[in-house]
Amino acid sequence: MNAAIENDTLTKLVALCKRRGFIFQSSEIYGGINGFWDYGPLGVAMRRAVEQAWWRYMVEQRDNVEGLDSTIICHPRVWKASGHLDKFSDLMVDCMDCKKRFREDQLATPGECPACGSKRLTEPREFNLMMKTFVGPVFDDEHVAWLRAETCQPIFVDFDQVRVAARQKLPFGIAQVGKAFRNEINPRFFTFRSREFVQMEMEFFCRDDESMTWYEYWREERWKFYTEVLRLPADRLQLHPHDKLAHYAKAAVDIEFAFPFGWGELEGIHHRGTWDMQRHSEFCGEPQTYFDQERNEHYLPTVVETSCGLDRICLALLCNAYDEDTAPTKKEGMDEDTRVVLHLPAAVAPVQVAVLPLSRKLEEPSEALYRDLKRSLRADYDVTGNIGKRYRRQDEIGTPFCVTVDFETANDQAVTVRDRDAMTQERIGLGQLKAYLLERLL
Amino acid sequence: MNAAIENDTLTKLVALCKRRGFIFQSSEIYGGINGFWDYGPLGVAMRRAVEQAWWRYMVEQRDNVEGLDSTIICHPRVWKASGHLDKFSDLMVDCMDCKKRFREDQLATPGECPACGSKRLTEPREFNLMMKTFVGPVFDDEHVAWLRAETCQPIFVDFDQVRVAARQKLPFGIAQVGKAFRNEINPRFFTFRSREFVQMEMEFFCRDDESMTWYEYWREERWKFYTEVLRLPADRLQLHPHDKLAHYAKAAVDIEFAFPFGWGELEGIHHRGTWDMQRHSEFCGEPQTYFDQERNEHYLPTVVETSCGLDRICLALLCNAYDEDTAPTKKEGMDEDTRVVLHLPAAVAPVQVAVLPLSRKLEEPSEALYRDLKRSLRADYDVTGNIGKRYRRQDEIGTPFCVTVDFETANDQAVTVRDRDAMTQERIGLGQLKAYLLERLL
Repeated sequence: MNAAIENDTLTKLVALCKRRGFIFQSSEIYGGINGFWDYGPLGVAMRRAVEQAWWRYMVEQRDNVEGLDSTIICHPRVWKASGHLDKFSDLMVDCMDCKKRFREDQLATPGECPACGSKRLTEPREFNLMMKTFVGPVFDDEHVAWLRAETCQPIFVDFDQVRVAARQKLPFGIAQVGKAFRNEINPRFFTFRSREFVQMEMEFFCRDDESMTWYEYWREERWKFYTEVLRLPADRLQLHPHDKLAHYAKAAVDIEFAFPFGWGELEGIHHRGTWDMQRHSEFCGEPQTYFDQERNEHYLPTVVETSCGLDRICLALLCNAYDEDTAPTKKEGMDEDTRVVLHLPAAVAPVQVAVLPLSRKLEEPSEALYRDLKRSLRADYDVTGNIGKRYRRQDEIGTPFCVTVDFETANDQAVTVRDRDAMTQERIGLGQLKAYLLERLL
Repeated sequence: MNAAIENDTLTKLVALCKRRGFIFQSSEIYGGINGFWDYGPLGVAMRRAVEQAWWRYMVEQRDNVEGLDSTIICHPRVWKASGHLDKFSDLMVDCMDCKKRFREDQLATPGECPACGSKRLTEPREFNLMMKTFVGPVFDDEHVAWLRAETCQPIFVDFDQVRVAARQKLPFGIAQVGKAFRNEINPRFFTFRSREFVQMEMEFFCRDDESMTWYEYWREERWKFYTEVLRLPADRLQLHPHDKLAHYAKAAVDIEFAFPFGWGELEGIHHRGTWDMQRHSEFCGEPQTYFDQERNEHYLPTVVETSCGLDRICLALLCNAYDEDTAPTKKEGMDEDTRVVLHLPAAVAPVQVAVLPLSRKLEEPSEALYRDLKRSLRADYDVTGNIGKRYRRQDEIGTPFCVTVDFETANDQAVTVRDRDAMTQERIGLGQLKAYLLERLL
């Protein structure tokens, strides 16, 4: 694929996201803040739907995974135990001339400042990516705390509390969705690399001798989530095994998506061994072991992790959905016109059905229909502009179905349902409409 | 009501919440961190249900309220404009002997240290409640940012972006749910006053001459949410008008709940005038006005706010639900035994229905029934212990219905449905079960 064309797609998508209120820069009236993005009305509807799909797939529909929602700020020793305080850092260099700072591994020309061209760069220095804060009335070292850099550590810390309360036995998992923060030096590629983002993680605790079986199980399950639940095409996804494994890990693989800027990680499936449980045992002073009644022995659980980024998944869905094609038009002298369309899967489309009265005289029955559909679907109502313009608006935000109420509706008790992708129109009786839509939407 | 008995209720509830995995201290294996609470499997199910009920009531079911999800960290000037950087503070005193720090308004005996009894206290000093962090590679004043102290400010900042993208006209509202942080000196009353919490806020933008009508409208709507959607009893709720109004406000009222420790605020409904929009206009340099086409004039919108705390609402639901009564028992020499029960409304109960096979021999049909119910309800399955013990377990977590599969089920294709509150049992055909439950649950 041509890289220039593809990056053009990202640029157009960013513009569409802002124009239609999916995603835009945080604090824009103040000039924005680099690496922070707000989700507008359509973005938040879509992100909630993706999150709920993950929660349902990973927690609600399983008996061996429990939910958790831990705080963003936890005890600072958690990050000492996890290694983040000592090792979660990038190598940075400063330009002694223009005073700018860069990640060493992102210098296009090593040893040369990308801003001013100077070759007077400092030696690389470690820069910790965790965001610091203070809890309590004094801003000193004793009161330092950190915004979590990942949602998984509190899961390890709460393992035994959750296990006992939920009366679970190994093997079982604990999952949570929540914000994480990383002080990225160079946020980029829209929401792909940002400083505040939502993680969805599940840690599966099991016996070491069964851990590779579970690793393979979860790799399959997570692949299915992307291809079957979110319907991302398999040819834009790939499994990318890690080149180098941590010393404690038996296996690790990323699920990557073909973004316009290249392959990018959506999720990591990691065999973490007993590393985390061992570290927290050491640092809290209590062994975080499990007593296996059947085998009459105590041992540290081995952990298989599935870790993904909600914002990246939404970005992948939007990139995959974005398309420009042609549609019939009534514009003078033209048969066809370019249309921008998001081919979003119905389960996560921010608007699932739009009700469009053909004339303002039809507002009463149209509104009644809209109210009714809105009870069980994400519905929209639009009466302004000609019908072609209204179709274009709905296409652009990915609405799978438009329902047109016309002057025949009162006579034949039917409406026209227009399919976003095929652009076909079908006459459907009002009595069958809800069932017709639900069948195609869920 | 007797205060000692009532505080005893809170103590028992805290123990129940930990034991059954609703809510427990964050980072407990490290000794905890004061003012931070984690939600376990049952707590997260319940909190998600309450959040979704609010989102549905405030956003999804309305055409004049749009959703938003802004970042926790936003541009620092937002907090300069809002006044938080200068004024969001408590008066603190330090004890010069034991070096402890206290909120001046919470000293039991003015001028005397509550820890060591010393009278050598410093003069009261301002202590800002916002949590500080740094964004970017340097930890200096230029890179300071703040964790939001309330979710409403980003709504004001994004007002115009959302309005244009959503093609809204005044009057309309913008709502969001999200974390907020306050460096409370004395976190207390379980989750009531914590340092990290979830707010659910809606800002309604309107013309000033219609603002009091909207204020009254939203006060009614919010009252209905507590009494009709969440089914809190009206006699444990009260409207408490603010004694003192901000200079720009025309009205303000709190909705309070009778907690075991006294009346406590769940929600504030505030007329905020044009104050926030005026301040952000000044600080960003662009007037945040609205052009009213009908009246052909530009003006600053007046804002009516509804602001509530998700954690407090969950705490109110749990406090209201907690009860001890008597239930039949088969324990030797006893007819009745004390039971602990949560009378939670079915819409927010973490488990809505539990399937309990009377014998392990009935596991196959029971599991099939459980799987089927789990598709549309929050369902649990329990086969361990005698049936009385299993009822007690479900009562304690507020499960409205228990379904018992017995040896008759294969013959009569029916199960026994037991009601948590009335403790009555009814024989229901398997074909009618789902409809029977759904009718009573939603």
